[in-house]
Amino acid sequence: MSHRRAAILSIGDELTLGQTLDTNSRYLSQQLVDHGIIPICHLTVPDDQPAIVRALRDLSRAADLILTTGGLGPTADDLTRQALADALAEPLVEDPESLDAIVRRFRAAGRDMPPINRVQALRPRSAQAIPNPHGTAPGLCAQLRPPANHSSLPTSDPPRAHESRLVDVFCLPGPPHEMKPMFETAVCPRLRSDRIVRTLAVHTFGIGESDLAARLGDLMDRARTPTVGTTASRGVVSCRIRAEGETDSGAAASLERAVAETGERVRALAAPYVFGEGDETLAGAVVALLRASGERVAVAESCTGGLLGEMLTRVPGASAAVVGGWITYSNERKSADLGVSAALLARVGAVSREVAEAMATGARARAGVEHALAITGIAGPEGGSEAKPVGTVWIARASGPGRGGSAAEVETRRFAFTGMSREVVREWSAMCALGMLRFALVGASGASLIRERER
Amino acid sequence: MSHRRAAILSIGDELTLGQTLDTNSRYLSQQLVDHGIIPICHLTVPDDQPAIVRALRDLSRAADLILTTGGLGPTADDLTRQALADALAEPLVEDPESLDAIVRRFRAAGRDMPPINRVQALRPRSAQAIPNPHGTAPGLCAQLRPPANHSSLPTSDPPRAHESRLVDVFCLPGPPHEMKPMFETAVCPRLRSDRIVRTLAVHTFGIGESDLAARLGDLMDRARTPTVGTTASRGVVSCRIRAEGETDSGAAASLERAVAETGERVRALAAPYVFGEGDETLAGAVVALLRASGERVAVAESCTGGLLGEMLTRVPGASAAVVGGWITYSNERKSADLGVSAALLARVGAVSREVAEAMATGARARAGVEHALAITGIAGPEGGSEAKPVGTVWIARASGPGRGGSAAEVETRRFAFTGMSREVVREWSAMCALGMLRFALVGASGASLIRERER
Repeated sequence: MSHRRAAILSIGDELTLGQTLDTNSRYLSQQLVDHGIIPICHLTVPDDQPAIVRALRDLSRAADLILTTGGLGPTADDLTRQALADALAEPLVEDPESLDAIVRRFRAAGRDMPPINRVQALRPRSAQAIPNPHGTAPGLCAQLRPPANHSSLPTSDPPRAHESRLVDVFCLPGPPHEMKPMFETAVCPRLRSDRIVRTLAVHTFGIGESDLAARLGDLMDRARTPTVGTTASRGVVSCRIRAEGETDSGAAASLERAVAETGERVRALAAPYVFGEGDETLAGAVVALLRASGERVAVAESCTGGLLGEMLTRVPGASAAVVGGWITYSNERKSADLGVSAALLARVGAVSREVAEAMATGARARAGVEHALAITGIAGPEGGSEAKPVGTVWIARASGPGRGGSAAEVETRRFAFTGMSREVVREWSAMCALGMLRFALVGASGASLIRERER
Repeated sequence: MSHRRAAILSIGDELTLGQTLDTNSRYLSQQLVDHGIIPICHLTVPDDQPAIVRALRDLSRAADLILTTGGLGPTADDLTRQALADALAEPLVEDPESLDAIVRRFRAAGRDMPPINRVQALRPRSAQAIPNPHGTAPGLCAQLRPPANHSSLPTSDPPRAHESRLVDVFCLPGPPHEMKPMFETAVCPRLRSDRIVRTLAVHTFGIGESDLAARLGDLMDRARTPTVGTTASRGVVSCRIRAEGETDSGAAASLERAVAETGERVRALAAPYVFGEGDETLAGAVVALLRASGERVAVAESCTGGLLGEMLTRVPGASAAVVGGWITYSNERKSADLGVSAALLARVGAVSREVAEAMATGARARAGVEHALAITGIAGPEGGSEAKPVGTVWIARASGPGRGGSAAEVETRRFAFTGMSREVVREWSAMCALGMLRFALVGASGASLIRERER
């Protein structure tokens, strides 16, 4: 039978107590989706044997495949082996090959196997051990018959007939550097899917989630195929496109076409806000555009204090497009490094259109590059006033020919990042500066950005 | 009734599909544990209304408290409101105050509320809306009666009598910067626990986790009270001290004394690496030390590209101690802005002791401040060589009298951040620069930093 629906079970007190961040579930979900298997839930339970048994039984009712991580170590709080045996209603037996591998692993490190590690060679009688080349804990693979009583899993499907069905269970170690290779080597080849899934994330910046949804219109209907959903994270609103179908000849190509076609429609409807797909970042898109045109950028940062430069230089290969810049946090540095006149600063204040423009033109002239971005604002929590509340930020872009070119085009916008924390004001400021440069590079300087107040 | 057992429910396709890493569950678990409430499980379900309803009902059988995150946005795939209403068997009604807050939020941003956002003002009839100062999605708070049928939650306890019991449910938005303040403001005051927990986190930087454990010795015995555990996150190794007891008169004071006393022992054993407690950051500690002594710092960053300046200016009130600096990502900017001679750059290369020192002394002289920190290194993934592999970073600190003082003390260290990603090399570099300045400010310049190779 094919694996259509998978459940991921993470086991460990350190997870339920919040001491450790679970990254395994996300990794396994990504892998399963790429294999056409839908994760229906993630469940995390403590190092508690009855809780693990119950979780295995419950998950077996709605899933065809259960992947567990954790609880395979040698100590008294490692209970996955015993819980799987309980769920199978079988005794644990010692696996001679596993024992041999553990003994050899210690011997290779010049030690005798501590007696405590012998427990790691145990497996439920009908289960198979999975070798672990990166640690002492073998994995386990078993087939579990769902219990007869009422289904309880959080799924919308009705409980399935349990008699005819066996659920594949793979128990993997918790440490990611042991879990991932074991998943790839031993689990992937045994995944069986009659479904194919194709997904695409299209990222936008500068438009709000509801405005984007309004533009996308019936593309976001829940019943549509491929489905389109939006998620927002720190100003980036992403459209997640997803299509699913049966495995048969031509299905993959047709799903890919459908996803790509929906992607194109999203791109068209959300233009000019779309900056990339998949792992692409806004800064990465800007660096790629600059590299493509052979242009460079310098930054002049006041309230962001280096964040814009940090975002740009986080991109591998940024050095071809980013020369650096100035963190002119104090007014003195704005004057000394960028030539902003002290008289101007005194007259209009550091957070003003005029100072943002002077910073950008000063930075561009001094760096001798095609583009400069300048940010000056009030990040808070102190420093706001009625006329310039916390969150008031001016951003200027100066652009023109590189070396020696003096005639610069300057574009300045005021933003109101009100009701945000200092950290978020700074993030939005740096992202909007990137957004302004991106608009200029793609010929969309006229487009407005969310939270913009005037030009 | 007290909240003894909590369940955390995360909602979103982006989570079950592995597109987004869930960090909310861990945060909420930590917070609950600190309030004496034990999280019995984390469950993650997709944007599927019947699945969310089922999850709420199932979790209500074994928990006293359910915290959900996600699914409160304005779009068709945001289904938490409707699912909660279904679980309560109630209709949704419009909450006038929520609607007003949403309208006002858009108005403050100079916009009319898009019609789609009106749905965010809905709440189940018996539920209360929780204001969200950081976004448009109000939270929800309701009391849910566990359904009568068989319990299915993965817990070791028998199902509880359901008739007499109401489970508190709090639905919070998914974005962490909205969720956390709402949890702290609206949920924390309503948590009820019959246990008292006192915790203290003492943070160190510059010492490895095992070296710190060796220094702490039997303070880390599992049976000791208060307990002491260590966790490491991006170079900061924190000692978490924890004591727990029954609620009664005097218990709180005695727990606090015990925790504070253990904290003092940790501080003594881990000196000079301890920089703060609780929410304090290394950059915050450096800014506080500078402010206390009336001194200032400038930065000169190559491979970190602004990250050190960003970390320093992330601290509220940094302007009294941080004047800014230079992002000299290109060699040209190192020469033009900091006076690093082109001949020196050609002779020893940008990643060298000499260039780090020239950057620091140049920055200090130009800024006219007491301290300058300079970073030059190879963050990767490209640019490494056998002599200077990726992760090779030189950091220099120049210190001396401010304005006009020319005799600077210069300290330079080489670090080997090998086997790390570009992002982590940059983070460690900026943190080590802060660590060097902190040692100088507390009179511990001789102390070594982890991953340091030579001076």
